[in-house]
Amino acid sequence: MARAVLPAAVWAEAIAFAEGLFDELDRRTRGPDGVTRASWGEGEQAAHDLVAAAARDLGLTVSTDAAGNLFMTMAGRDAEAPAWFTGSHLDSVPCGGNFDGAAGVVAGLAALHAFRAHGLVPARNVTVLATRGEEGSSWFSGPHKSHFGGRAALGQLSAAEMDAARSVVDGRSLAQMIADAGFDPKGAAEAPSIRPEMAHGFVELHIEQGPVLDRRAVPVGIVSGIRGTRRARDARAEGAHAHSGAVPREYRRDALLAAAAFAGALEARWEDWLAQGRDMVATLGRFSTDPAQASLTKVPGLVTFTLDIRSEDEALLRDAEDFVVAAARDIGAQRGVAIDLGRIDRAAPATMSPDLRGRLRDLAAELGIPAIDLASGGGHDAANFALAGIPTAIIFVRNPNGSHHPDEDMPIADFGQGARLLAALLAD
Amino acid sequence: MARAVLPAAVWAEAIAFAEGLFDELDRRTRGPDGVTRASWGEGEQAAHDLVAAAARDLGLTVSTDAAGNLFMTMAGRDAEAPAWFTGSHLDSVPCGGNFDGAAGVVAGLAALHAFRAHGLVPARNVTVLATRGEEGSSWFSGPHKSHFGGRAALGQLSAAEMDAARSVVDGRSLAQMIADAGFDPKGAAEAPSIRPEMAHGFVELHIEQGPVLDRRAVPVGIVSGIRGTRRARDARAEGAHAHSGAVPREYRRDALLAAAAFAGALEARWEDWLAQGRDMVATLGRFSTDPAQASLTKVPGLVTFTLDIRSEDEALLRDAEDFVVAAARDIGAQRGVAIDLGRIDRAAPATMSPDLRGRLRDLAAELGIPAIDLASGGGHDAANFALAGIPTAIIFVRNPNGSHHPDEDMPIADFGQGARLLAALLAD
Repeated sequence: MARAVLPAAVWAEAIAFAEGLFDELDRRTRGPDGVTRASWGEGEQAAHDLVAAAARDLGLTVSTDAAGNLFMTMAGRDAEAPAWFTGSHLDSVPCGGNFDGAAGVVAGLAALHAFRAHGLVPARNVTVLATRGEEGSSWFSGPHKSHFGGRAALGQLSAAEMDAARSVVDGRSLAQMIADAGFDPKGAAEAPSIRPEMAHGFVELHIEQGPVLDRRAVPVGIVSGIRGTRRARDARAEGAHAHSGAVPREYRRDALLAAAAFAGALEARWEDWLAQGRDMVATLGRFSTDPAQASLTKVPGLVTFTLDIRSEDEALLRDAEDFVVAAARDIGAQRGVAIDLGRIDRAAPATMSPDLRGRLRDLAAELGIPAIDLASGGGHDAANFALAGIPTAIIFVRNPNGSHHPDEDMPIADFGQGARLLAALLAD
Repeated sequence: MARAVLPAAVWAEAIAFAEGLFDELDRRTRGPDGVTRASWGEGEQAAHDLVAAAARDLGLTVSTDAAGNLFMTMAGRDAEAPAWFTGSHLDSVPCGGNFDGAAGVVAGLAALHAFRAHGLVPARNVTVLATRGEEGSSWFSGPHKSHFGGRAALGQLSAAEMDAARSVVDGRSLAQMIADAGFDPKGAAEAPSIRPEMAHGFVELHIEQGPVLDRRAVPVGIVSGIRGTRRARDARAEGAHAHSGAVPREYRRDALLAAAAFAGALEARWEDWLAQGRDMVATLGRFSTDPAQASLTKVPGLVTFTLDIRSEDEALLRDAEDFVVAAARDIGAQRGVAIDLGRIDRAAPATMSPDLRGRLRDLAAELGIPAIDLASGGGHDAANFALAGIPTAIIFVRNPNGSHHPDEDMPIADFGQGARLLAALLAD
């Protein structure tokens, strides 16, 4: 079986099928401010229902595991050989876009659509995996490591973590939400649905979440590695509320000015590190005075905020963590404000399989698909597959407007290039 | 009639009466996070009902004007002479304390309680005034100048302003809220209920909203003047939401870091002005990323905030306004973030009557009440009476914990000293 044999007409039909899925996903889950598919919530379930139905129409074997991850399998010539896994998540951040996550699931189905239309039977089983709760950082507070569904599939999600993670919407535990969605949190904690020996490899197609491919004018990227993180989900600066007109500066304990000074100090240090050529991004994503107490005429006594620092360089992450802890302590002490970062969650950078990266580069060259190597700034389910010892790769598709917001975009022609590269690997 | 003739027993009874009113006010309007008496809302109405009933029990003539301000009058020996007005507001900031505003109304009633018990008929009519909506800055957005009830009584509140001011709770216009509370916004705009020629003077007792009397260990202050303000109620920094891990720093338009830099620049300039001996306070009271869009994993594209700058020095206020406008423009331009302060509301500093201040100083000395002169950092209804040309004074009572928050406090003995000084002036 040659690599490039999928005829243009077959592939065009597969892309039309993919476009239909994207349009219907959008229709079912877009609100006035963007697409919202909450982890184990209404929007994610609507996406799973749509995709499962499409997989059944393609004649795939469809099942779910205890956490609610969706498995859609085409049998290969050697059904006993370790299988290819491909896919991504179907949840989104609040008010995000239509493609982050979903593109990977739809690409896998498009590949199998083409295989079927062309009568191509892959060498080994190919399972398209739609995970749950990859965007857990946006939907859950409490100590947790996000990427819930993928980690549950790999046996990496404990019952304790499912109890500790709490919905930012209604405070329910993750365990409760999984149960309320009709699945089995106890089973999810006890046994993996994917063991490393079952997997020949995991390949995830995903929109690039940054602007690098767009600025470089290339449709497809082959990911070198995934940035690790240091994250504070429940940081707070606590001073004292006071009258905004009557309290002189020397008697104030202004939580807002303290937290703003902390943000400024971190930004200055970040600039220093970038000037040294080190890799880093830093974000205070939520940052707010207390809505219940703040007013125009009160010195703010409380600010809550989040912190997300990422780098491909584990040593930089350690330095950055030391820096923010010291800055919080020192800036707080100078101002009579207690700046407490709370628990800091850590995720190590993840490396992609050199072998799979090489094969993807070769296939791209063979198929005439322009592609460059680049780092992934965002975390992905793929990181957990790599950490579990499964050979893992990520294909990025150009996205001119960035991700995690409603204007996220993906030219369907670029998607076609990325999905064609994926199909070639899965058939190979 | 001599000044200090109120016997100790009479005064003790008046203070017990005042304490009863404070306790009942607290009981009716305190929630888990402090006292909340929304302007033209439930808590303010409960306070008006309580106070009006107490006034009727004292035999006072009780009426309301078109805006819902409450007038409680004891006839004097010369009922045709211009009257004394005394009092304050009965609303509070959200989650504030029990005494800010209410102390002035209760002090007026305590004075009349003592007059009645002692059979003292004042030289001229004495009206205790309980205004509405003095804390409008905390309850209304849109272009407005707050102090609604007092300004309505003086004919300073236009129909346009009542339409423009919008409840931050439910978006209703001020005009609608006044009507919904059973009063007459049209009448309030058309005719004052207090004309300057009706008033011999206006004296407001109020807790000090800052720590100056407490730090100086003096129970009573005689106010020299009220700081003017520059206020931005609807400032915003607008950049672009983006993925927190995948967008390098040079491509970001981070609204939070821009707004934090603006706060830092204002604070640095404020320090410079203080070092030059100029009078100023500055507060960003509300400051928040967009709750509907912000998450741990998104670069914030929007921050909204408020700004409240105050000074006794009109020239400093002009300099500060120029500074913040330029800083917003320049910092925004450097970062690709549009920092728009929106409409800036201005209130001029107000001077207190030198004659009334002198009489209060003399009476305090005569009665052995320790008192110092000090500036008022907070705005008060009294500012509008002064601007209307009515001789005006403010008596401050020590408050160890500051104002506009739940821990606000006022030792009843200090209140007694301040109320005794007020009673002496009103009887005089």
